Amino acid sequence: MIRRLDRVNWVKGHGTGNDFLVLPDADPLSAGLVRALCDRHHGIGADGVLRVVPAADDPDGAPMAAAAKWFMDYRNADGSIAEMCGNGIRVFARYLVDAGLAGPGELPVATRAGLRTVWLPAAGDVTVDMGAPAPIDAHPLVGGQPATAVSMGNPHLVVALPAGAAGLAELAGLDLTRPPVVTPTLPDGQNVEFVVRTGPRGIALRVHERGVGETRSCGTGVCAAVVATVQAAGAGRAEPWTVDVPGGRLTVTWTAAGPVRLTGPAVLVATGTTRPDWLSTVPPA
Amino acid sequence: MIRRLDRVNWVKGHGTGNDFLVLPDADPLSAGLVRALCDRHHGIGADGVLRVVPAADDPDGAPMAAAAKWFMDYRNADGSIAEMCGNGIRVFARYLVDAGLAGPGELPVATRAGLRTVWLPAAGDVTVDMGAPAPIDAHPLVGGQPATAVSMGNPHLVVALPAGAAGLAELAGLDLTRPPVVTPTLPDGQNVEFVVRTGPRGIALRVHERGVGETRSCGTGVCAAVVATVQAAGAGRAEPWTVDVPGGRLTVTWTAAGPVRLTGPAVLVATGTTRPDWLSTVPPA
Repeated sequence: MIRRLDRVNWVKGHGTGNDFLVLPDADPLSAGLVRALCDRHHGIGADGVLRVVPAADDPDGAPMAAAAKWFMDYRNADGSIAEMCGNGIRVFARYLVDAGLAGPGELPVATRAGLRTVWLPAAGDVTVDMGAPAPIDAHPLVGGQPATAVSMGNPHLVVALPAGAAGLAELAGLDLTRPPVVTPTLPDGQNVEFVVRTGPRGIALRVHERGVGETRSCGTGVCAAVVATVQAAGAGRAEPWTVDVPGGRLTVTWTAAGPVRLTGPAVLVATGTTRPDWLSTVPPA
Repeated sequence: MIRRLDRVNWVKGHGTGNDFLVLPDADPLSAGLVRALCDRHHGIGADGVLRVVPAADDPDGAPMAAAAKWFMDYRNADGSIAEMCGNGIRVFARYLVDAGLAGPGELPVATRAGLRTVWLPAAGDVTVDMGAPAPIDAHPLVGGQPATAVSMGNPHLVVALPAGAAGLAELAGLDLTRPPVVTPTLPDGQNVEFVVRTGPRGIALRVHERGVGETRSCGTGVCAAVVATVQAAGAGRAEPWTVDVPGGRLTVTWTAAGPVRLTGPAVLVATGTTRPDWLSTVPPA
């Protein structure tokens, strides 16, 4: 039973244009409320919601409560529950430091994909340990093209387009207003990245996120794309890769020890509160 | 010279999904700040901005200051100045009453398209006198099809699709991600409405707004579409027409006396303030 709220306080933030509403009050969320908040025309608008919950108070966060004070309850814009988001966790960590809920430096965060470590100065770019990639034993086709399946806590399919200018033109022309046709789909669905090699340690990509649509950027997708590219190239591991996404630029390093580190901006845009008349129109479920 | 602000306070509202940031502080606005505020991924997100200005303090509003206390300084999402918006003025009026700047009932508002009268109860749907339509002496083609040119203070081209189910299917299939091809264009550009007759006094439409792109709804466009449809039908004037737009439903009456009245919802969604770190990244012009 989710009680009806009389207001929702939020902070809107983005990382390379992947935007989120951080909800600091830890009130339980219905899928309908998430959809209404994320509606860009009838609501506030975002790719997803990041609820700030004491790890000990959440069933998914409690096993990590000894290591992390805060659990990131991440929901997609369609109201579905999601494991982890590499852009979202930077915004989440920036919010915690800004609100005085954590200090700058090294910060452990509990997520549904497990414990994640974030490093952030008092201002500026934020680095996240995204965990180690895991292969997925599947070889689906995306629009008839072969794809590499990689898990970064959530499932990705990485499609390599031709390198250089030809690939960039193909990338720009892709229609991602609908989900790419995947045969067969992965058991839990998939995020799909279309990748172009732009230099010795550089790629550009566009992403279609499961449950959201095309986004300006996807942190786990950017990491999966570098992992797949390094594997295909047989070189470049443990060196920083530059990744250009529609919303900006990120840096990814697949460390020799295993985990992938993602570095990029985290910007808090605005602080606000919903209006009672609007909230009263939101269906409770 | 526009000074750099240290914050922007705003109220987000919408009318049938046409969404706006009402800016109550009357600070001068650069086009760059409007674009940044309206950016749906890196900013807050809206179809446009409605600055609340005492009519006497604005060069465009001052001639109406004896009749109207408030001037609606309306800007499109691309930063350009616009004359009038039938969804925006409902949100603007709802804000004035909500903030205690005006009482419910009859409310005159100064706009760049002239003085407009709004009628609003303390809560619920808002009616706006949109002024009388004016013919435009032009017969451009839209995608090769004939169009009716109508001014509602701003220029519109209305394209009639086939009535009923066939037209609705064509309407749903239109690609409005790019501006429709208009030959020749009107001197000040144009909004374009594609209209399907759905009943004796009912139409459905989609609109591409000049300077914005496709929107969920456009108040002046809805009025222009009813005027063009009544003219083509040779009947139905002075009776209320129901207009379905992607964002909801509006009612339009082309009064026998001349002016068109538009009735529909005006919802205040959220109240907020920009963050200093974000605002410092906005170019001043």
